[in-house]
Amino acid sequence: MSGGAPGGFPADFSALEAEMAAVAARVEDCLDQVLPQPQGPEAPLAEAMRYATLGGGKRLRPFLLLETGRLFGAPENWLVRAGAAVECVHCYSLVHDDLPCMDDDALRRGRPATHVAFGEAVAVLAGDALLTLAFDLLASEECHRDALVRVRLVSALSRAAGAGGMVGGQMIDMALEGTAPARAEVARLQTLKTGALLGFCTEAGALIGGAGGEAARALSAFARDLGLVYQIADDLLDAEGSAAEMGKAARKDAARGKPSLLMGRSPAEARAEARALGDAAARQLDLFGERAKLLKDLARYALDRRR
Amino acid sequence: MSGGAPGGFPADFSALEAEMAAVAARVEDCLDQVLPQPQGPEAPLAEAMRYATLGGGKRLRPFLLLETGRLFGAPENWLVRAGAAVECVHCYSLVHDDLPCMDDDALRRGRPATHVAFGEAVAVLAGDALLTLAFDLLASEECHRDALVRVRLVSALSRAAGAGGMVGGQMIDMALEGTAPARAEVARLQTLKTGALLGFCTEAGALIGGAGGEAARALSAFARDLGLVYQIADDLLDAEGSAAEMGKAARKDAARGKPSLLMGRSPAEARAEARALGDAAARQLDLFGERAKLLKDLARYALDRRR
Repeated sequence: MSGGAPGGFPADFSALEAEMAAVAARVEDCLDQVLPQPQGPEAPLAEAMRYATLGGGKRLRPFLLLETGRLFGAPENWLVRAGAAVECVHCYSLVHDDLPCMDDDALRRGRPATHVAFGEAVAVLAGDALLTLAFDLLASEECHRDALVRVRLVSALSRAAGAGGMVGGQMIDMALEGTAPARAEVARLQTLKTGALLGFCTEAGALIGGAGGEAARALSAFARDLGLVYQIADDLLDAEGSAAEMGKAARKDAARGKPSLLMGRSPAEARAEARALGDAAARQLDLFGERAKLLKDLARYALDRRR
Repeated sequence: MSGGAPGGFPADFSALEAEMAAVAARVEDCLDQVLPQPQGPEAPLAEAMRYATLGGGKRLRPFLLLETGRLFGAPENWLVRAGAAVECVHCYSLVHDDLPCMDDDALRRGRPATHVAFGEAVAVLAGDALLTLAFDLLASEECHRDALVRVRLVSALSRAAGAGGMVGGQMIDMALEGTAPARAEVARLQTLKTGALLGFCTEAGALIGGAGGEAARALSAFARDLGLVYQIADDLLDAEGSAAEMGKAARKDAARGKPSLLMGRSPAEARAEARALGDAAARQLDLFGERAKLLKDLARYALDRRR
């Protein structure tokens, strides 16, 4: 089933996809430059960091960060650098989440997960080193000329990624596994696990672009809703998708009793809610007019992606 | 065997031990304040973070940082905050190193390791969250009033803790296990695994205190030598100590074929070398006169400690 625009016409995401691909290529170049090169007895660490980070993913988070920064005319090279930082955090979280003691996923982006390719110990260390690298990237002058902005980026990332954000969300995800949590609990889980890092992306774009409070608040609300849309889309993929489409095992979350935003609803109902949520998210950006077109598209694109 | 001063007289470390205990108490208070409180379904994460961090250890790294900052009259509260940050990184590294897929140690500081007490998944996440928290602590105004200093602290910590520092050292440690590496290789391993974070401590104290280049270089050389002294002392403890003395399993490193600085030498030879190295480290600090007395003692204290 292919997604449709609110009016029922097939949506055209070609401009969005082209720009996402362009941003992904620039972030890939940046990551390739900042990631360590394998050498010496520690070579497997650098190899695993590169394996976990390069050549995969749509780079949704860097794209969100770049498009936000562009609203305020921020320099592209600063945005790309911050985008590489958030992608390091995202990729580290995937490496650790896939570990046997966590979600135990052997497949990621259609390839063996990092711990399958390099062993568990190297995977733990590669995740640690990617997280650490992210802060170095944000602290560098290549991310912003003003040290106060850089230090605010560091603060914002550590809050979004830590116990009160992404890692806290992953903890709740595990704690609720096999229980029958209320939907509000699952929504809070996802707001921490996925939404916090997406929120960092708009926050970082706004900080680097020197945005005012009203604009930053609208973008933050947008990011929060966007996170839920993507999570519902993920849960739908897990329920309906095939492993080939997803690049990882399908129906695994449901089989494990993972908390899901689908609970108690049909896929069609969940899809309709996600679409309404995406439309609401897009309206948060009305104050930016046409300049926010790709960001608005992003909120509706989630339900059309296949992996 | 008890340690002796270079001249053969029993050394008196009572002033050093008293000040280390005082610093440890202040850092403990700070950690208690900044670590999350357990609540909600994510409570086990906060509990594990607190378990791994509070109530244990000599706080060598914070002490080194504070004593360095004091040489330059830096405000104590800033130094304590930075000391708490480096302790978060140290404790996270112990949690991850103890995991079954890494060094597989069930005992730490005389208590069950974090993964034994909370499970492996929670231990991985607690380590991740502690590392993340460290950067938030350094980025805060409570660490220094000047954003440029804070951002330099963030940069310095990420370099010391990441692939080019502590995590890289841990990778080499695993890679060389069961091989017969040259001593220079083992020394490089330990300089990364232990020395880099100790080097951060003097660097951070110097940064917060606004030290000049010559002073910072002397302190950096001191930290590098200090790291080797502590590592030889650790290797001696593993070879000679009992589990009760160490608070963790003894002779385990040797049994696993872990790279050791003892290789090819008797304990007495290694002890003599460490003592000479400690004396050399202390001489690096001659330019600070009597003010550096406790730091100098620290270099000789390593060989007298029992855990």
